[in-house]
Amino acid sequence: MKRLLVALLLTACSSLFAGSAFAQAKPEDAIKYRKGVYAVMGWNFRPMAAMVKGERPYDAAAFARNAEIVAYMSKLPLEGFIPGSESGDTKAKPEIWLDMDDFKAKLDKMQGEAAKLAEVAKGGDFDAIKAQFGETGKACKACHDKFRNK
Amino acid sequence: MKRLLVALLLTACSSLFAGSAFAQAKPEDAIKYRKGVYAVMGWNFRPMAAMVKGERPYDAAAFARNAEIVAYMSKLPLEGFIPGSESGDTKAKPEIWLDMDDFKAKLDKMQGEAAKLAEVAKGGDFDAIKAQFGETGKACKACHDKFRNK
Repeated sequence: MKRLLVALLLTACSSLFAGSAFAQAKPEDAIKYRKGVYAVMGWNFRPMAAMVKGERPYDAAAFARNAEIVAYMSKLPLEGFIPGSESGDTKAKPEIWLDMDDFKAKLDKMQGEAAKLAEVAKGGDFDAIKAQFGETGKACKACHDKFRNK
Repeated sequence: MKRLLVALLLTACSSLFAGSAFAQAKPEDAIKYRKGVYAVMGWNFRPMAAMVKGERPYDAAAFARNAEIVAYMSKLPLEGFIPGSESGDTKAKPEIWLDMDDFKAKLDKMQGEAAKLAEVAKGGDFDAIKAQFGETGKACKACHDKFRNK
């Protein structure tokens, strides 16, 4: 109940804010943006997963490119989680805004693992790559489990 | 009519293709991906437009970051225009697949202008930036006018 009140308060504040001269972005654009970031990450994650699982032959250059793009994109989503964008066409849970410190910590962890994956991928050592891919996937999952609706 | 037949043929071929061991991506994922790329571009384009129009104070660091992200993203959309993804939840016109050479040329032009914008933005000369922002916007529009439904 307390959480719901906080979420409602956030929405009310951001509505006031959106009406001011300081309006930066519409909630629906912010949602579209962050979903876009994750869609690009997913698109690049899937072929890596297929290679790691042996469903597709390992292609060192393609893997390194996918990993580089995921690492780049990983730095972008946060700015899309603006107040007022807790509801709408989104799977984001209100918990994100209620526990922003932990959300940021989990995002930070994922960014670190994705950066390491991009680095390891350049080396072409497929065993090391597989291990680091696993770490990156775990970091994604930890955040999804807590902060994303199914 | 000929165009419609070609589009149908593309869809039929890609359906066969998707059933094979060489399946790379689902059309709906490709659409989600490329829309995601453009959403991230749009999100970064808007604050630059606001600064250029004087609706927001010019912030050199923010502008340069937006321009750098747009230049990076500009290199990504093409791989999302796979055969079989002409229809669905997309504004892409079938003309893209029927005139892929021109689509690629317009995309290439936009990539070049976006790269120039990222370069000019680093310099902080706002007049030069405004001019190059205009060129980039024109390159976006040329492609939208021909290949995107309203």
